[in-house]
Amino acid sequence: MTGLDLLPSWRPGATRDAVVAFLEHVEDIPVAERVACFDNDGTLWCERPQYVQFEFFVHALGARVKADPEAAHKPEFAALLAQDRAAIGELGLERIAMALVGLFEGNSPEEFTHQARTFMATASHPTLARPLRSCVYQPMIELIEELRRRDVTVTIVSGGGTEFLRAVSEELYGVPPEAVVGTLIEYELSRGEDGAPRLLRTGRVAGAANEGAAKVSNIQSQLGRRPRLVAGNSGGDREMLEWAAAGEGPTLALLVDHDDAEREFSYVSKAETFSEAEPITDVGVRLGWTVVSMARDWETVFAG
Amino acid sequence: MTGLDLLPSWRPGATRDAVVAFLEHVEDIPVAERVACFDNDGTLWCERPQYVQFEFFVHALGARVKADPEAAHKPEFAALLAQDRAAIGELGLERIAMALVGLFEGNSPEEFTHQARTFMATASHPTLARPLRSCVYQPMIELIEELRRRDVTVTIVSGGGTEFLRAVSEELYGVPPEAVVGTLIEYELSRGEDGAPRLLRTGRVAGAANEGAAKVSNIQSQLGRRPRLVAGNSGGDREMLEWAAAGEGPTLALLVDHDDAEREFSYVSKAETFSEAEPITDVGVRLGWTVVSMARDWETVFAG
Repeated sequence: MTGLDLLPSWRPGATRDAVVAFLEHVEDIPVAERVACFDNDGTLWCERPQYVQFEFFVHALGARVKADPEAAHKPEFAALLAQDRAAIGELGLERIAMALVGLFEGNSPEEFTHQARTFMATASHPTLARPLRSCVYQPMIELIEELRRRDVTVTIVSGGGTEFLRAVSEELYGVPPEAVVGTLIEYELSRGEDGAPRLLRTGRVAGAANEGAAKVSNIQSQLGRRPRLVAGNSGGDREMLEWAAAGEGPTLALLVDHDDAEREFSYVSKAETFSEAEPITDVGVRLGWTVVSMARDWETVFAG
Repeated sequence: MTGLDLLPSWRPGATRDAVVAFLEHVEDIPVAERVACFDNDGTLWCERPQYVQFEFFVHALGARVKADPEAAHKPEFAALLAQDRAAIGELGLERIAMALVGLFEGNSPEEFTHQARTFMATASHPTLARPLRSCVYQPMIELIEELRRRDVTVTIVSGGGTEFLRAVSEELYGVPPEAVVGTLIEYELSRGEDGAPRLLRTGRVAGAANEGAAKVSNIQSQLGRRPRLVAGNSGGDREMLEWAAAGEGPTLALLVDHDDAEREFSYVSKAETFSEAEPITDVGVRLGWTVVSMARDWETVFAG
């Protein structure tokens, strides 16, 4: 195996060399400790102009309003439907997000999964002229495949909703539901008229959003192993990137820099935890992470 | 494949027939929905005269008192060390359990895992004259192997501590950490003197104990799939057994009846949720679960 056969969508250079070097040293890690955690939004798929899950929520809101026009009068929905920036700002994004989460209250997990899959099978990106499901990054897909070939357990650790991601993680990334760690909603177990138990979604989020330090705690709680590779792109990934980098043996902290306005988007996220706000790419350079320039390091951006 | 080649530790009869019938119909289930959840204490390994994890805690208490004799004066520990039933009853088991959990406060996950593995490598059962690690049920090991051979994802859903079980689940059952759902403790992310992040155990339990209805919610939240097979033995398993049994397609709800005073122990657990207390074996018969008589259905009880 030589580096040349691997990762065809990664251009030759220092970044690709660092990734290939990690792959070549994976065999030095005991199999039980071969764990990789990938953030999703902005790391495995495009997160601009808005989160894919947000597009799904807005789509679901459209369907709700069609079935029940009264719903459009709820202040959070009215502001959103009118794209009224002042009203949105006044209500706050968190309150609006919780109202959207509430659209699925009373759904069974299977009903929610079905809706998410239907949306992802048909929706297009608003500006990139491609299906949303093909807005995943081809170089990351290649890396995931190489990791799996080396018996690395590949997981996704996202700030987004766990169940939304699980609905598509197997198809898009080959990652099974139990290897997806995200923000959880609470469930409620009740009984149907026939006495059989039913598990239904509530409108409440369980615990804190899966961002920053919570990502590290939740990796330990839900996956039970410290990752040797972490890939991320935003301030919310900082702690898990540091945690991987500070571990023993071969490790890789991979940070995607969205510097490709031509093929994708150009923006920088701030890392606001544990320190003053600092662009995450500056943090990455300072801490010696492998920073991926989307513009320079990737020959291909999107999956075919 | 005929039923005769399978499950050599299961004696011929209606119970074995039901288990073999499920195995023969597993291929009717889409691979992505092939999930089995096993309770651990009393279902996969012996839970009498006391939980294995409790033995581990008491062992750790002994080591703590040796290193720090003052610790023996803490009321919860004093009651336990003196086996003072009156004092134990007055303090309550929950308070004593939390004091024991507190023994590991400030440990890293790796330190805790090391202690648990060292204990399990050397400890013996107090009355069965065999190592604790071999107090697992051979018939269940055979069932797990047959399930895995049919691409079923085998998971453990226990009321016990997640991390204790994860320390041994791969070795004993071939179950990786992310497929173990138990009661979680909270972690805290801090920084060492070198600025590197450290994840350490607190003395607090995160959320509710993983029993009863919580098992169903936590299966959905952590594993993301509804099981087609659930195996349990106590009131704390009732809801997940019902949930599996009420699902679509081939399902199996398997209840272990500890009726074998000669080879193991004889006792009955109550199901106290959703209804008045009722012996769980009565619940199982009433709801049509497959009830395993340890005395009659198992040719061999313990792994070699």
